[in-house]
Amino acid sequence: MSTNGEQNIVKGNKEYAASFTQGHLALPPSQNYAVVTCMDARIDPTSAFGIPLGAAHVIRNAGASARDAFRSIVISQQLLGTTEVLLVKHTGCGMLTFDNDTAKGLVKKNKGEAAAKEVEDLDFLTFPDLEAEVKSDVEWLRGRAVEEGINFTGWIYEVETGKARQVV
Amino acid sequence: MSTNGEQNIVKGNKEYAASFTQGHLALPPSQNYAVVTCMDARIDPTSAFGIPLGAAHVIRNAGASARDAFRSIVISQQLLGTTEVLLVKHTGCGMLTFDNDTAKGLVKKNKGEAAAKEVEDLDFLTFPDLEAEVKSDVEWLRGRAVEEGINFTGWIYEVETGKARQVV
Repeated sequence: MSTNGEQNIVKGNKEYAASFTQGHLALPPSQNYAVVTCMDARIDPTSAFGIPLGAAHVIRNAGASARDAFRSIVISQQLLGTTEVLLVKHTGCGMLTFDNDTAKGLVKKNKGEAAAKEVEDLDFLTFPDLEAEVKSDVEWLRGRAVEEGINFTGWIYEVETGKARQVV
Repeated sequence: MSTNGEQNIVKGNKEYAASFTQGHLALPPSQNYAVVTCMDARIDPTSAFGIPLGAAHVIRNAGASARDAFRSIVISQQLLGTTEVLLVKHTGCGMLTFDNDTAKGLVKKNKGEAAAKEVEDLDFLTFPDLEAEVKSDVEWLRGRAVEEGINFTGWIYEVETGKARQVV
């Protein structure tokens, strides 16, 4: 029996491919920017942030962490020529609700010692204050030598209203 | 003067928020799965992989690397209850076109010594064979103790045709 994800991709992709006309798009983003946002299921960056297909890299991880995204950001700029990064965190983020100790305790309790060992050195990169974390992440990126000349902005997306606003 | 990304998010979000009706969606993904795919500008996971809003976490990084996504995958499962991961890499991926030495050489040449130092220990996680890398990433995830009980599948999305096919 196929799962939810398998069913969705098989059915959804069949429809998508049937009317697909964008096979000519080039590898480098046509509008030379990257968006870093959260993996949260309630965010659809294409629609919510107005990104045309082929225009921008979209990097997503738990919490829209700049540090976690660093490898991808450097590749986006140094190998594929982007010059702008929008960092978008959001209200109701799961990363506001736990900390390293909670996460590691859960792994140990639910999955055992071997699993606990695998995440022992992992920093889950949680944060207690949304707006402060947007600013702090943007500042961290602006402080990297490899990021010199890149335009950074920081945003908050509200999952309750669908609205995005600039913070920095 | 605002940039491409800023113009897109301001204009696109205004339209999106004006007709937004999904403010009731819960934090945990309603269909209990996560998709890991590449940051590539030519991929729109929502449409191409048939993901309803609120249904699945979407994790994206350069190359759809499982190791890079590990923190987010663990959070998705241990904190937010997902039980399935679709790993989707794609044809024409930038990660097939360079290696660590090339990337580090470019950073040094374009941004100088301080920048080179910042990426000196970074593994850019490039790969030479697309299908082999999908299999290898899925195997790596299946081998983690913390991933016991999770359903993994591996896919290739063709940027030329819009079609996705299952590899493993």
